[in-house]
Amino acid sequence: MKDLTVTEVRLTPILVADPPLLNTQGVHQPYTPRLIVEVVTADGVTGLGETYGDTKYLEAARSLAGRLPGRSITDLNGLLTLAEDVPLDGHTVDGSVDVGGLRGVQTADKLRLSVVSGFEVACLDALGKALGLPVHALLGGKLRDRVEYSAYLFYRWAGHPEGVAGESDDWGAALDPEGIVAQARRFVRDHGFGSFKLKGGVFPPEEEIAAVRALADAFPGRPLRLDPNGAWSVETSLKVAAELRDVLEYLEDPTTGTSAMAEVAARAGGLPLATNMCVTTFPEIAGAFTAGAVQVVLSDHHYWGGLRNTRHLAEICRTFGVGVSMHSNTHLGISLAAMTHVAATVPGLHHACDTHYPWQTEDVLTERPAFSGGCVTVPDGPGLGVTLDRDRLDALHRRWLADDGSLRDRDDAAAMRRADPGWTTPPVPRW
Amino acid sequence: MKDLTVTEVRLTPILVADPPLLNTQGVHQPYTPRLIVEVVTADGVTGLGETYGDTKYLEAARSLAGRLPGRSITDLNGLLTLAEDVPLDGHTVDGSVDVGGLRGVQTADKLRLSVVSGFEVACLDALGKALGLPVHALLGGKLRDRVEYSAYLFYRWAGHPEGVAGESDDWGAALDPEGIVAQARRFVRDHGFGSFKLKGGVFPPEEEIAAVRALADAFPGRPLRLDPNGAWSVETSLKVAAELRDVLEYLEDPTTGTSAMAEVAARAGGLPLATNMCVTTFPEIAGAFTAGAVQVVLSDHHYWGGLRNTRHLAEICRTFGVGVSMHSNTHLGISLAAMTHVAATVPGLHHACDTHYPWQTEDVLTERPAFSGGCVTVPDGPGLGVTLDRDRLDALHRRWLADDGSLRDRDDAAAMRRADPGWTTPPVPRW
Repeated sequence: MKDLTVTEVRLTPILVADPPLLNTQGVHQPYTPRLIVEVVTADGVTGLGETYGDTKYLEAARSLAGRLPGRSITDLNGLLTLAEDVPLDGHTVDGSVDVGGLRGVQTADKLRLSVVSGFEVACLDALGKALGLPVHALLGGKLRDRVEYSAYLFYRWAGHPEGVAGESDDWGAALDPEGIVAQARRFVRDHGFGSFKLKGGVFPPEEEIAAVRALADAFPGRPLRLDPNGAWSVETSLKVAAELRDVLEYLEDPTTGTSAMAEVAARAGGLPLATNMCVTTFPEIAGAFTAGAVQVVLSDHHYWGGLRNTRHLAEICRTFGVGVSMHSNTHLGISLAAMTHVAATVPGLHHACDTHYPWQTEDVLTERPAFSGGCVTVPDGPGLGVTLDRDRLDALHRRWLADDGSLRDRDDAAAMRRADPGWTTPPVPRW
Repeated sequence: MKDLTVTEVRLTPILVADPPLLNTQGVHQPYTPRLIVEVVTADGVTGLGETYGDTKYLEAARSLAGRLPGRSITDLNGLLTLAEDVPLDGHTVDGSVDVGGLRGVQTADKLRLSVVSGFEVACLDALGKALGLPVHALLGGKLRDRVEYSAYLFYRWAGHPEGVAGESDDWGAALDPEGIVAQARRFVRDHGFGSFKLKGGVFPPEEEIAAVRALADAFPGRPLRLDPNGAWSVETSLKVAAELRDVLEYLEDPTTGTSAMAEVAARAGGLPLATNMCVTTFPEIAGAFTAGAVQVVLSDHHYWGGLRNTRHLAEICRTFGVGVSMHSNTHLGISLAAMTHVAATVPGLHHACDTHYPWQTEDVLTERPAFSGGCVTVPDGPGLGVTLDRDRLDALHRRWLADDGSLRDRDDAAAMRRADPGWTTPPVPRW
């Protein structure tokens, strides 16, 4: 009989290189915090998880980690219960927007669920390794062998602001329709993506409409999406919807709040609205679904408390006739593997999932998960099917240790102020 | 590495002794059909499942069983997909009421899900045995060590009608408030139950109100429920609700159909309505929840397609602020174990679960699961934690083989005609 008792939990905060990708709140920092979770069992099996690494997440994770030894890695319902008692001392969790996540209103529950997700994935990875089963088998088995992802296009600068330390890359700037199309072409060449999402809310809507039109011309018939992170008014949203209805697969979070989304949805002429902002927790579902505010929920196992909650969410959506796909924030290969396993088990996954992963040049794995034809093959080996490279982990952790604290809490507005000292997060609606 | 491939599926239809319990459609047959499912893996591990055994279920089960060899017992999402293709040739599945189940309108989907549930439980039992894990651990781990059940009180005769073969027992008749209270006292003495459900719809509402009042007097403060299986009009339901509001935990399926239930719920002065008739499938949820027709869904893993779907259902209910508990039809110890495992994993299970099990004097197990203080202890051994007694299984199967076909499809109205030749299923509303 295996001993599945947790004997040790290792938490390693790291800083990972991130390109200067623009969004409505500012620009990505040159390095972004992530947290690598290792759960070790009495038999010496180690499971891997990954989540947000900002200080408040890290402190909550440390509290949760201290409670795990002695519990079984199978005790995942209990893990969610346990997380409800994690204190969040010293960190104000109020109604303000979480600038790191662009995920709507920050709440204590969201923070706890994001933390617990890293532990749940680590437990599932360890359980799969201990039992000789892939994580998807622990979720009832895969329904497909490959999971499709979309190309995640960003307006971006060629490099981080002058005087800011950071890694460089050869992508160059993308600040207009031509730049976005060139970026898309490279994504297709490198990874075979067949659908495209543009992160909007950066430039006035007319410019972003032009960029989507240019994508439609360059890739006729391919699914396109535009996501301004809630930056538009209802009227602006409706104007964009009217202009792009014929080429968009869905419009993502055009405006902020359930009632505004519902109004856009009702008047958008049948263009579906997707969200990872107005429905990000279970308590938000009933109001949004009843109001018809969203037609596609972009799940994110970090937000929702893990892979098993993601499955529950998918079944809720299916029951209410709402589509489901997957949101992504900056993440590494552990999370890409977790996303792939759970996505493989979701019935009726009709949209390619989002992922930032191609923008991440650094990782903590011995081998990077690869995209082929825009898809990741679902791993069938034990656990997640990824292997930690401890040297790489240590190197990224040393970067975190060496940081003076200025990068340990992701703040896209602060990063933007290095280029534009007068910058503040624009109020919504921005346009 | 374990070989979890299915190599054989054994289906054994049986007839199980059932007392003459009365309901609005008639009386229980002296023997009722059940189907025992055994799924065998390449390593020789056998998992047990149980479901309805009526001919149409048995034929669908045979079709599904033929498709399982070569598949993995971990492939439970695929099992649901597979079941969608099971033909139901030769058996009319129309809008008529399923007299066996008192479970609302019969549909092909309900039949398929009931069949697949027996296979899903058998696969989980086999998987747990192969991995050395209890079934609850495969569902994310138990949240409680004991699952509470309620005493399921029935109006009943002392014996089956004269001239009808059947087993006898020493319960005697219960046809009035005194009889029901005596039955409840014996249930408390034998099993320690702390809450009580009366199957109603048998006598005019005044008599059933009097029985519930008698229970309230005999067991002050204990949770009470009354379930007429949809036999009442809206006005009758409201009258009963008004008279029993102070003593009922909830009123179960007082009337038939979502709109009638919604009307009762809106006017019942806050008395919650429970159901296992108007919400029995995922497609029925949105309409019923939106209409506020039900406040407690009585899940049943046979109806809903297994233990994993039961978990999804529970999360849907939690998300929409609807309570959840558990329905029961005539079942044996395999299903009681399955119910106990899944109930142990459901957060916020605020009501004792229903079970017919104390009425079943026969079983196919070496040891019967026991109630103590009204609870079943959640088994922590591998799988479901029950052991098949093949001699008992064979004996009950021989009874099925020897039957001339008259008992192979449960028909409570036909059973009633043995006592009352003019009996037909009463139309609803009956009162």
